[in-house]
Amino acid sequence: MKKVDLDEWMSKLKRIEDRVERLALLSQLGQILNSTLEYREVRRRAIEAATRLMKAETGSLLLIDREKRKLFFEVALGDKEETIKTVTLGMGEGIAGWVAQKGKPLIANHPEQDHRFFKGVDGRAAFKTRNLICVPVKVKKKVIGVLEAVNRRSGADFDQEDLALLTSLADQVAIALDNARLYREQEEMFLQTAESFADAIEKRDPYTGGHTQRVTVYSQAIGRHLPLKPPERKWLRIAAVLHDIGKLGIEDQILRKPTQLSREEYDVIKHHCDLGAGIIEHIRQLKEIVPGVKHHHEQINGKGYPNGLKGEDIPMIAKIVSVSDTYDAMTTDRPYRKALSKEAAIKELKRCSGTQFDRKVVRAFLKASRNGEI
Amino acid sequence: MKKVDLDEWMSKLKRIEDRVERLALLSQLGQILNSTLEYREVRRRAIEAATRLMKAETGSLLLIDREKRKLFFEVALGDKEETIKTVTLGMGEGIAGWVAQKGKPLIANHPEQDHRFFKGVDGRAAFKTRNLICVPVKVKKKVIGVLEAVNRRSGADFDQEDLALLTSLADQVAIALDNARLYREQEEMFLQTAESFADAIEKRDPYTGGHTQRVTVYSQAIGRHLPLKPPERKWLRIAAVLHDIGKLGIEDQILRKPTQLSREEYDVIKHHCDLGAGIIEHIRQLKEIVPGVKHHHEQINGKGYPNGLKGEDIPMIAKIVSVSDTYDAMTTDRPYRKALSKEAAIKELKRCSGTQFDRKVVRAFLKASRNGEI
Repeated sequence: MKKVDLDEWMSKLKRIEDRVERLALLSQLGQILNSTLEYREVRRRAIEAATRLMKAETGSLLLIDREKRKLFFEVALGDKEETIKTVTLGMGEGIAGWVAQKGKPLIANHPEQDHRFFKGVDGRAAFKTRNLICVPVKVKKKVIGVLEAVNRRSGADFDQEDLALLTSLADQVAIALDNARLYREQEEMFLQTAESFADAIEKRDPYTGGHTQRVTVYSQAIGRHLPLKPPERKWLRIAAVLHDIGKLGIEDQILRKPTQLSREEYDVIKHHCDLGAGIIEHIRQLKEIVPGVKHHHEQINGKGYPNGLKGEDIPMIAKIVSVSDTYDAMTTDRPYRKALSKEAAIKELKRCSGTQFDRKVVRAFLKASRNGEI
Repeated sequence: MKKVDLDEWMSKLKRIEDRVERLALLSQLGQILNSTLEYREVRRRAIEAATRLMKAETGSLLLIDREKRKLFFEVALGDKEETIKTVTLGMGEGIAGWVAQKGKPLIANHPEQDHRFFKGVDGRAAFKTRNLICVPVKVKKKVIGVLEAVNRRSGADFDQEDLALLTSLADQVAIALDNARLYREQEEMFLQTAESFADAIEKRDPYTGGHTQRVTVYSQAIGRHLPLKPPERKWLRIAAVLHDIGKLGIEDQILRKPTQLSREEYDVIKHHCDLGAGIIEHIRQLKEIVPGVKHHHEQINGKGYPNGLKGEDIPMIAKIVSVSDTYDAMTTDRPYRKALSKEAAIKELKRCSGTQFDRKVVRAFLKASRNGEI
């Protein structure tokens, strides 16, 4: 009798120790999930967390697109990633679709016997699903997606304890996704507002319609062919959007003059670089943007303005915006001349590479142009 | 022998069950912490979490102000809150100061015997510290603060398991604080950029220096005396900042005219409400701001513009900005007249209450004015 008790105790102890270990892991995974506000990264970490916590072979996160009434496999780990992430399910279709629609968790230890099981994923990914566990991801009680783990490594069935743990993880995934969404919304609000202001400023000059938007597209395309760090790419985009905001401070009669400008008038126009920098220079979070706005009319040979900076003294972002800005000016009609063809403008960029423009930036422009990005 | 084993097992089981419970609580507290991006709210939840997890009477979060080289008790729960949150400690001063400086956790089960213990807090708050546990809060290995729990409810000592749990909680607090900081930085970047643009637009009109800033201060002061929801207060601030951005689209010769405007010119000026709304109306996150910008020249009696809206049809934010805007216009010099005194302007607001202005808004203005907020 005693003997039996002891065995029971030991197995109970083993189970509970296992539970301690998994709860500690859950807490650690929650930290990893929440230590980024990048939407894509949260999704990737959610999958990884579900897979590790469930001791599974793979996992996936399916997010609901309410408009299309579909579920998207947003990411899935491992070799099959590329294949799996293109799969979509209808709401209610397959096990994940059932979980998304009902908002209830589900364990399928014998999915081949479950009529809800959708074999499309297995088929397309050459993947055999032995068992799976699947829970809804809810933000303020609204189902936004489904988190699942597939194929327990040990071969054992998924059980109610797994379900409780995965549900708890899904709650953390929901929070991390929602925070990333809020952060991204604010980021978008900033960018869209900056773009709107830039557009409105640009509209004062009837000859530059769409200029800011094109310069932004060109600058980002050039940036993709240069070894920039991720934050530099973000700054480049903002600097391109804001490069001409200083024109806000230029009088209508000069800005809108339909004929060629006098030397004095041109000097006034040149002032837009300093004016633009002045508008944003006291904003701490935009300090990396200021040089891009201020120096986008400098030239490698030192003959540019406002400071006549030379070569490497000109910030990279400014050198990129300079090429984009000049290319767009050449390829659009101006009050006093017609637009150049794309080919003629590229020839001009090449001709001035190393004197007016940075050689590396022109090379990146040419790559982007050949790629059809410009 | 068996008997002893069983007792040992049972006490081991008891401890481990307790650990399961606390790990589950830790996970739950981490979720609560991370489900807000409001800095103040994260701080409040951090204290509450430390207190609950440590089964303590109270807790506190001390944040380091690197410039001042001081630690601030940011929040503390319970009746003593008001007293405690004003206390500051020097780096290295007291137990929390020691933890902040060394970056190491500490348990003080007999703080009265610890020479590092600073009795200033107890003295000021009429509070007796029996024992305390204190861990550093680190973001990317840098100590940003200290999390502590004071007075274990059971009277027992704090032990190494408590330390491990509180350290884990502190890691989550660090993440949540850092996310809230990043979110707030983006929010500030947006607001400061909007303010900068508004300032720059305003500078085109030499007679309105500081107008936007004053209208924002007045609007927020009025808002404090009206039953607005927290997001409405945020929208009010943005709407006040952006209320005149449409002037960007008004020609210099009308905007800067030093003499009284003709009827036709005035009609052009009136267009700034629609122009302003037009600049921001496609930005999804600013949709709540658009009515404030568009309708800040409407009047309760329907004699305003651009739509001649009446009474309750005018959005509250627009009615607030209207009072602030008119009050500032009255109390500053204009090209064609001198500023009114504060008293004369208030008299005018009262006279037009119920016809031009909303009565509730004028009442809130008067309260704010009496309070010295305007």
